Amino acid sequence: MNEWIKVFAPATVANVGPGFDILGFAVGEPGDVIAARKSQTVGVSLANIHYARKGDVGRLPGGIRNTAVIAAMNVLRTLQQRGFVEKTAGVELALYKNMPLGSGLGSSGASAVAAAWAVNVLFGQPLAKHDPDIILACIQAEASSSGFHADNVAPAMLGGVVLIRSYEPLDIIPLDAPQEMVCVIVLPEYEVSTRKARAVLPEQVALKEVVIPHYANVAGVVAGILKKDLALFGRSIDDRIVEPARAHLIPGFYAVKEAALKSGALGCSISGAGPSVFAITDDLERGREIGQAMAQSFAEHGIAESHIYVSSVNREGVKRIE
Amino acid sequence: MNEWIKVFAPATVANVGPGFDILGFAVGEPGDVIAARKSQTVGVSLANIHYARKGDVGRLPGGIRNTAVIAAMNVLRTLQQRGFVEKTAGVELALYKNMPLGSGLGSSGASAVAAAWAVNVLFGQPLAKHDPDIILACIQAEASSSGFHADNVAPAMLGGVVLIRSYEPLDIIPLDAPQEMVCVIVLPEYEVSTRKARAVLPEQVALKEVVIPHYANVAGVVAGILKKDLALFGRSIDDRIVEPARAHLIPGFYAVKEAALKSGALGCSISGAGPSVFAITDDLERGREIGQAMAQSFAEHGIAESHIYVSSVNREGVKRIE
Repeated sequence: MNEWIKVFAPATVANVGPGFDILGFAVGEPGDVIAARKSQTVGVSLANIHYARKGDVGRLPGGIRNTAVIAAMNVLRTLQQRGFVEKTAGVELALYKNMPLGSGLGSSGASAVAAAWAVNVLFGQPLAKHDPDIILACIQAEASSSGFHADNVAPAMLGGVVLIRSYEPLDIIPLDAPQEMVCVIVLPEYEVSTRKARAVLPEQVALKEVVIPHYANVAGVVAGILKKDLALFGRSIDDRIVEPARAHLIPGFYAVKEAALKSGALGCSISGAGPSVFAITDDLERGREIGQAMAQSFAEHGIAESHIYVSSVNREGVKRIE
Repeated sequence: MNEWIKVFAPATVANVGPGFDILGFAVGEPGDVIAARKSQTVGVSLANIHYARKGDVGRLPGGIRNTAVIAAMNVLRTLQQRGFVEKTAGVELALYKNMPLGSGLGSSGASAVAAAWAVNVLFGQPLAKHDPDIILACIQAEASSSGFHADNVAPAMLGGVVLIRSYEPLDIIPLDAPQEMVCVIVLPEYEVSTRKARAVLPEQVALKEVVIPHYANVAGVVAGILKKDLALFGRSIDDRIVEPARAHLIPGFYAVKEAALKSGALGCSISGAGPSVFAITDDLERGREIGQAMAQSFAEHGIAESHIYVSSVNREGVKRIE
């Protein structure tokens, strides 16, 4: 009998303020889990999806339109092409969807990464995490649900903070995160569609007034991370392009941000496409206070329930847990 | 009798590829020199300008429109306001203009920085190099000749690679340059006006096709410098906005760039507003070969004479030499 293994992939904060489509980092919680085992049936099948949030039950496609299945199929094909696996190999998956859908926490990316890594582990782990083919397998899976971008799947796979310097060719640069970096995520019970969040972006941007200050902040984020200067990192979380366009999609966003900063957060912005809002600090206890203040502010804007996650950066990325 | 002192400020490569208006670094040579002494005449006077290039003689304004004089006056005023210097103090300057005008090497900025620092040294050096007032004194002087920007004066003052994260408020971030970083500068005998170079810039830029890949490269430059990864730094010198707009102002630019890359340069672009072209490598000897190849390419495009400068990054910035 083929045994099940389980793989965990973490939630990720994409964009990190001004780094739309090019920066992301992995957090300690939440995350998705994939169970996988070898199967007699050729190819990849998805046996089951367990939803943590009742409202999500039944919302994900079950077959080859599921990001986990696409990623798993891509990796299986790569393993076959490289001669590691027989053409007749089969994999059975079960997805434990711990993250709510449409959260802005890289939920579909985490499922894809967990599935891709699970297939690799099942067949003796011939691919390294930074193998371009395994990352591309996940990017292509992501593309089917939320556009071609790697700022969720790359940090979910590798852990830490990741810069995608180029997509063609793929150039992924791990950035070592400061030890004391703590991330607060507040996820309001409110849904923002990724497609809608992409549709509100401007097509053209003013060079002098917007683009230059914007990329100065991108530079500040990278410098703050690599110089281990969290204050610089925090004040560089100043997004002149995407945050202003998306803020109205999240009820009370600017008040929530103000609440975070007033509670001592070094920086705060939308996580991915939202509605999750993230804040940076250097202390877990202060992080919990910041999270409470942010959730309270959401409550004052009509969103009674929010999830608060406070954790250090996840430096390990995807991992086998059973 | 009041004795003359002499202060040297280095040439600088502003923009560093994609970092228009926000990144710059100082080089070993060339540079301008200011001689200064206390004077009985209240305020700042410019006794003399010595031009190294004959064609430049008489082209710089001599009075309070000279950037060196403006910077010196600004610093003198700051010293007076902070109580370090009497209201009746006077300074006499002489400018040794070693750099050609309109070179794209921060010539006016170097003169301003040398003058600002000379005044500070004359009165016992009460201001540190990173004092915002002394940097602002130079930015304002620069603004009179070539627009409000700090990516020449900040590295000329501080040395090394410098990020200007924000102009309001001024937020200057020194980035430690990799030890083995070597810069090749080829300055063709051809003039590009800074005003013209600014006029050709686009007002609006396409977000998806241009802005995002562009700031990904800005992030790559900063990451390459701080990770001491010159290959990453070099391939991130990929400017999607300013270089394409300015290339036609420099005869043969793309051929010169290709010659640099073919000779082993890790990256190559326009220095500041041009016509100087800079290239990055990790070895002085190879740097000289790259410089020859670039000058040769300029010659093939009708510019018979070029100056070649090959040096490590200047980490010290402005300094007293006599």
